[in-house]
Amino acid sequence: MSRRILEEAQIREFIDLDLGTIEVIESAIQALSKGNVIMPPVLSMELREANAEVDIKTAYIPGFDGFAIKVSPGFFDNPSLGLSSLNGLMIVLSAKTGLVEAVLLDNGYLTDIRTAAAGAVAAKYLAPKQINSMCIIGTGVQARLQAKAACLVRQVDEIKVWGRDFNKAQQCAQDLEQALGVSARAIASAQEGVETSQLVVTTTPATAPVVQSDWLHPGVHITAMGSDQETKNELEPSCLEKADVYACDRVSQAALLGELRTAREHNILLTDPPELSDVIVGAHPGRVSDADITIADLTGMGVQDTAIASYALTRIP
Amino acid sequence: MSRRILEEAQIREFIDLDLGTIEVIESAIQALSKGNVIMPPVLSMELREANAEVDIKTAYIPGFDGFAIKVSPGFFDNPSLGLSSLNGLMIVLSAKTGLVEAVLLDNGYLTDIRTAAAGAVAAKYLAPKQINSMCIIGTGVQARLQAKAACLVRQVDEIKVWGRDFNKAQQCAQDLEQALGVSARAIASAQEGVETSQLVVTTTPATAPVVQSDWLHPGVHITAMGSDQETKNELEPSCLEKADVYACDRVSQAALLGELRTAREHNILLTDPPELSDVIVGAHPGRVSDADITIADLTGMGVQDTAIASYALTRIP
Repeated sequence: MSRRILEEAQIREFIDLDLGTIEVIESAIQALSKGNVIMPPVLSMELREANAEVDIKTAYIPGFDGFAIKVSPGFFDNPSLGLSSLNGLMIVLSAKTGLVEAVLLDNGYLTDIRTAAAGAVAAKYLAPKQINSMCIIGTGVQARLQAKAACLVRQVDEIKVWGRDFNKAQQCAQDLEQALGVSARAIASAQEGVETSQLVVTTTPATAPVVQSDWLHPGVHITAMGSDQETKNELEPSCLEKADVYACDRVSQAALLGELRTAREHNILLTDPPELSDVIVGAHPGRVSDADITIADLTGMGVQDTAIASYALTRIP
Repeated sequence: MSRRILEEAQIREFIDLDLGTIEVIESAIQALSKGNVIMPPVLSMELREANAEVDIKTAYIPGFDGFAIKVSPGFFDNPSLGLSSLNGLMIVLSAKTGLVEAVLLDNGYLTDIRTAAAGAVAAKYLAPKQINSMCIIGTGVQARLQAKAACLVRQVDEIKVWGRDFNKAQQCAQDLEQALGVSARAIASAQEGVETSQLVVTTTPATAPVVQSDWLHPGVHITAMGSDQETKNELEPSCLEKADVYACDRVSQAALLGELRTAREHNILLTDPPELSDVIVGAHPGRVSDADITIADLTGMGVQDTAIASYALTRIP
């Protein structure tokens, strides 16, 4: 196989958030249950001076021809330069020779897609069947994608969007209504959003809780996908204690970078909780009643990168 | 600056092991003494099934416009497929925006150069002035480059090459004599090589010592650059105890991946030794007498990758 250099426009043309990408990501997460996946800890570099961070993730999944190395820079002053904060690329190396098979100059697009697809997998396995209302906390690219992801695996009657900036929440709701054909509106209170919804997705870079455990009610599922750094935290730690089921994507990683980190600082969930892969394969029952409170804590994994990059290479001619 | 994709042939045309690259690497190592370099631990993934490993290194050096992320796969069954074991690439991201500035598809060439250049820096600062004999342990690409590197910073009268395979040692010696115009010959005994040389460079993937401390004699300098994995070891641990000066490239890294790791397993050098940067800036005196025994333990650092990649971008039109 000759080496390929793929640009973002090509990748966008052939890869989107759909049932195909969700299936690819579900399989990748499921692969973790077998124990022969190799996924080293994230390499994380903080560039305080530049208000920036760079994360590097990788994973080898047995049976895959290649494995991805994903570089995710976040430069948070970029918007003032008219640039996106998040960028990056993926490299695919042959799992047989280590030779570079492809450089995917996606500027973070595949990360967006595989992150949203993981949200869909979490909702598929943990959310109640009936979603009268979904609440999205956050108003960015991932807020939009998570709403779309949920609608691909559940019938959603209404979407509520909450953000610190009400105007952005309104814009997001308007965009979602148009794109998904689902009634959507901005709401002024995150509490109202959580209390009236069966599915909540938090998509913020918050470093202090945006969801309080008092708001959790029977039957709610929360996917917290914002926290992926050791400074981030979206859920009040007691949420995790209150949940009937708390599952994270990878315990070792969530304990460093996810909601599990903050919870453990409060002596909650000191014994290892189940991973989402355990729920997928049935090693953990997951939600057993419509009244269960469930939480999925997603930090984003190298297996998702290897899976989406490999899939992109098969799809892009 | 627009994004550049550079191929190995272009890179080879403009970057070689010379006084320029040695100066670049010396500056990068020296930068570590200032304490504001950001260099996270190496991301290392072992693929046992494929007899392979992948290392990812990065470092941010203040004042540099960009920083490199270097991916080094080692697939040790590749030679049976007619391929090089070591390959890889470097990516340069803007230190201001995180955008991809360049992809250097060097297949490991820049790593070879920056590794040899670090050997030159170690020899420059620690080897005695007079090198009647240099001994190279190992017969591969890096053995050749380390010999060349030494000759760029010291007058070397004779080169002795030792390898497990005498034929390869002979070929290496022949190549070196031709390339460097220095008398070179293969020797049958590593002990003889070390005992009769003032400068020794070990360039092997050994997992058990190839140099014994009994062989060390007044005035010898050893650069051990083969060990860069937690399984590797070239020097008998007591060598480090016997040395008047032991300096590594980075203590935190050498303690995990270098000779320092094995030494500490034997309770040697439990307090932090100096780094090569300390010797460069004079914070540690280094060699103070022609009779000193000195050792440099080089594991290879992200600052070298950022420096050589940045230099390549300035040199390649």
